Amino acid sequence: MNILLVGVGLIGGSFSLALKHRSDLTFGGFDKSEEAQGKALELGIVSKGFASLKEGINWADIIVVSVPVKAIKELIPQILDEIHPNQIVVDFGSTKEAICTSASTHPNRGQFIAGHPIAGTEHSGPSAAFGELYREMNLILCDTNLTDSDKLKTFEVLSRDAGFSIIHMDSREHDKHLAYISHLSHITSFALSCAVLQKEKDGEVILDLAGSGFASTVRLAKSSPSMWSSIFMENKEMVLKGIEAYKEELEKLKELIEMNKEEKLEKYLERGREIRRILE
Amino acid sequence: MNILLVGVGLIGGSFSLALKHRSDLTFGGFDKSEEAQGKALELGIVSKGFASLKEGINWADIIVVSVPVKAIKELIPQILDEIHPNQIVVDFGSTKEAICTSASTHPNRGQFIAGHPIAGTEHSGPSAAFGELYREMNLILCDTNLTDSDKLKTFEVLSRDAGFSIIHMDSREHDKHLAYISHLSHITSFALSCAVLQKEKDGEVILDLAGSGFASTVRLAKSSPSMWSSIFMENKEMVLKGIEAYKEELEKLKELIEMNKEEKLEKYLERGREIRRILE
Repeated sequence: MNILLVGVGLIGGSFSLALKHRSDLTFGGFDKSEEAQGKALELGIVSKGFASLKEGINWADIIVVSVPVKAIKELIPQILDEIHPNQIVVDFGSTKEAICTSASTHPNRGQFIAGHPIAGTEHSGPSAAFGELYREMNLILCDTNLTDSDKLKTFEVLSRDAGFSIIHMDSREHDKHLAYISHLSHITSFALSCAVLQKEKDGEVILDLAGSGFASTVRLAKSSPSMWSSIFMENKEMVLKGIEAYKEELEKLKELIEMNKEEKLEKYLERGREIRRILE
Repeated sequence: MNILLVGVGLIGGSFSLALKHRSDLTFGGFDKSEEAQGKALELGIVSKGFASLKEGINWADIIVVSVPVKAIKELIPQILDEIHPNQIVVDFGSTKEAICTSASTHPNRGQFIAGHPIAGTEHSGPSAAFGELYREMNLILCDTNLTDSDKLKTFEVLSRDAGFSIIHMDSREHDKHLAYISHLSHITSFALSCAVLQKEKDGEVILDLAGSGFASTVRLAKSSPSMWSSIFMENKEMVLKGIEAYKEELEKLKELIEMNKEEKLEKYLERGREIRRILE
């Protein structure tokens, strides 16, 4: 089976590396960055590089699109225009509603699968890809009632082989939850990094005084700016709601400190600490 | 040499465990939680438990206080009242200005060392302590010009033996920097956790959709509420300034999303990503 990776970075590249044990699969790549495409060939993420998307599509059985979400939204209908009836098109973008909408009325909608791997690191590009990234991680598949069941099944088997557990979800629900659980984490991390960099002009001081806690909290600020600006814009409505809700919490905390309400402050922190019960 | 740990949790306990190789040291403990004191004895963090602080002080050569900062501020002058001229009193609190002020005019000020280990985890109590916590970490010592130089030297040798590198700093400067680099990280993490818990009543959904990024960003929200409410209150003025600066950054980010300024948004995120250069 021929799998075309459109975008050969962390997300697409790791999908290939996670399936190295499947000798029946051949991975090809198309990336608008020639450098990335060269690197993916060098690292064995793909064994074929295509000069044009069209060439790649003609060659592939399955097309997996892992590029910034704004580009995915534009690419999916174009790819669906080009394919023959046996091909499968998948996207691995972090927002799902706008992408699903872009394909919803397409005559080939049944050949499309909207996916979101709940896995990643703050690094990007082919060199960041690794075969263990998806092990025991969730792959969210959205609006799968609109996908042909045989094609869905083929792709689910492949995904489980890459290490994923599969969860089905409505695309709007997905974006609503992700705004809080993932996108807001990135927002708070980027804002924290900017606040600290704005205040602390001397990197040496940051390095001297930063414990592992600071590193952990700003880790996501190292993520790809183009990928995340695209995600924030695509999920704009819900991300803005998330920021509002977050600002309210911040305001509560600030007021408790301002008013010297130490006992209530401790209770507030106890409430935040409840996240332990869920994550551990 | 006899070292009394006042507070036998993560911070005090790890100091003892980091010095296990020094057979000339005996660690004793006093903790207002009998349970913690029992646990510290059981884990070999201390080999003696004292029923009263006074008893412990009488026995010790060096007294290391690692309890919430508000309690430290009250304890230090009391302990300085009790000691004889050869004893050394150290605190390991995360804020320094108020603590230094509480001791500044004490006749025994020369016997006091104000320290802050830049190390920790989100866990607390004696069971969280481990001997590697301080390896290659910084210990900030504040206003050391007010400490007798022979006592300072004795304690610095001990600290380096526990794995620390030592940095000297003015206590007010310390608190100003820490408000941004550490305290603000905790604030943003607690607020994020509360915002998500408020919105997502179903823990299962959080678990399904939370990648390692979310876990990393809310990790600090698992920290001890009593310890951190105390820190926020003790460093109130600067923490509030930090929150204000952070809110401004958040507002900028929100506006860029609201106004669909994707290019500027990407530039903003690029700025946040600069933290890589410093931390890596």
